[in-house]
Amino acid sequence: MAKRCIGVDIGGTSVKLGIFDTEGTLIEKWEIETRKTSGGRDILKDIAETIKAHLQDLNLKADELAGIGLGVPGPVMPNGFVEVCVNLGWRNINPQEELRALIGADILIRSNNDANVAALGEMWQGGGKGYRDLVMITLGTGVGGGIILNQRILGGNHGMAGEIGHIHVRDEEQEICNCGGRGCLEQIASATGIVREAVRRMTNTDIPSPLRSKDKVTAKDVLDLAKAGDPLCEEVMETVGRYLGLITAQLSMVVDPEAFVFGGGVSKAGVYLLDITEKYLNQYCSISSKKADLRLAQLGNDAGIYGSARLILD
Amino acid sequence: MAKRCIGVDIGGTSVKLGIFDTEGTLIEKWEIETRKTSGGRDILKDIAETIKAHLQDLNLKADELAGIGLGVPGPVMPNGFVEVCVNLGWRNINPQEELRALIGADILIRSNNDANVAALGEMWQGGGKGYRDLVMITLGTGVGGGIILNQRILGGNHGMAGEIGHIHVRDEEQEICNCGGRGCLEQIASATGIVREAVRRMTNTDIPSPLRSKDKVTAKDVLDLAKAGDPLCEEVMETVGRYLGLITAQLSMVVDPEAFVFGGGVSKAGVYLLDITEKYLNQYCSISSKKADLRLAQLGNDAGIYGSARLILD
Repeated sequence: MAKRCIGVDIGGTSVKLGIFDTEGTLIEKWEIETRKTSGGRDILKDIAETIKAHLQDLNLKADELAGIGLGVPGPVMPNGFVEVCVNLGWRNINPQEELRALIGADILIRSNNDANVAALGEMWQGGGKGYRDLVMITLGTGVGGGIILNQRILGGNHGMAGEIGHIHVRDEEQEICNCGGRGCLEQIASATGIVREAVRRMTNTDIPSPLRSKDKVTAKDVLDLAKAGDPLCEEVMETVGRYLGLITAQLSMVVDPEAFVFGGGVSKAGVYLLDITEKYLNQYCSISSKKADLRLAQLGNDAGIYGSARLILD
Repeated sequence: MAKRCIGVDIGGTSVKLGIFDTEGTLIEKWEIETRKTSGGRDILKDIAETIKAHLQDLNLKADELAGIGLGVPGPVMPNGFVEVCVNLGWRNINPQEELRALIGADILIRSNNDANVAALGEMWQGGGKGYRDLVMITLGTGVGGGIILNQRILGGNHGMAGEIGHIHVRDEEQEICNCGGRGCLEQIASATGIVREAVRRMTNTDIPSPLRSKDKVTAKDVLDLAKAGDPLCEEVMETVGRYLGLITAQLSMVVDPEAFVFGGGVSKAGVYLLDITEKYLNQYCSISSKKADLRLAQLGNDAGIYGSARLILD
């Protein structure tokens, strides 16, 4: 029988797991709660137990596994060491070493940051399939990024590679970002950023909009109204697309990928968002007529388990 | 005898050549004129002849050569193909294939863009020695860049990798850059950009400065006066350093290199320039307390021959 690999995406509230064949077919997926009590010490125990139980159910021996990949919500050193992972309560731990001991077999275990792993997953079986070099931009509560070069994650030297949400793009911004900086991409293009841009525009202009009658504005409201032709929301999305065009232009003149893959809740705006982004990518990047393709992510919340499993096949 | 490799740096006015041992010791260097007549067709012939003559002088047979590397002043495809090289008059040519035929021996020949090759040279034997991942920023008439990851040139997919001089950094810029864009880094941080910034400041302010008595302002004037404490020139260099800090912050959150290496005429401002740049790198990059090292290039005009030769040793 062909070997299997397991992808584990460790999140702040749940751990997602998937068993794959080496061709990328998902055989089974499930999830467990993330037990964050006692400094997150139980998380890896729970993962080891649920994996052992599933291997038994599937009648798979540990040596029929090609390996286990872990996606961790924080910076991971090349040797797997995690200095601090706020979301899980981890400090000075090597989760891949610990999990190997807990599984109790000499099995290949690799780990990487969750945003990087999601990018790898989209390259393997999602919106980036067929590309070797891509940048994934995840537009969710924040803005995350993952860079794949020659089918491998670009890890960086200080845990910052692909942290494009905190690139400074707007000089006139007055509010402070979560990172302590000011004018970060995340302050404009995340779901939170879109809401803030819309609220600002309602405060600073008289442009009428159905948005004004909402008790609480969501990014989805803004996206839906913009697509329906509401001028105020169109302006907001034009601004968001302009900064996404700027960042894709910057990334094109740095890593020059084959494609950008947009994921996260905001990317549900779909082709509407890609079209505005492309217009500004062309404007901000005049040095070459050939540009990277703009694509939408396809794996949703499963990108992490796909990418973690793919870590093993390098 | 240990093998030799030859580095050839093809420029618009002269071709520089160097013979190295595989440890990176320069054994001999020389240069010839770049004959750009008849669409640059003679350039490779001249290179082949001068190499053959030097090999004879050194009593070296072609098969004692590890290979020849070429630095080309324009985009080079992974297979060596050059679609267009304005500076040399080349169109649709594969210089590495042609040179191999002209040398008349089955010898390894590789080529790459000159800015990338200079970055590789600085990594091998210059200001980037000891680093595996670095970005070289060349501040000359224009602003060039080369990215080295895991000791190899990052080539990109549309000939744009490392073209950091044309990254848009200033929204309020009104003048058009050579590239057709507006607000490019090159418009501020190149020698030309520094002069323009200084002239603007003389026009728009009443700040006294010895610069005002010059017939023709050069970047060197501005640098020298800034280091001597002239307030107007200090302001100009503060602006230049701010944008260099911004670009190194952006690059840190994309490729996250171990080091930045600054070359070109403007980098002669030395530690003075690095200090301002570092201040703004820290300001624009708040997500990690650990940052890349800032270094000065050491090989000057020889970076290209070092880097071209190093192409062979991959």
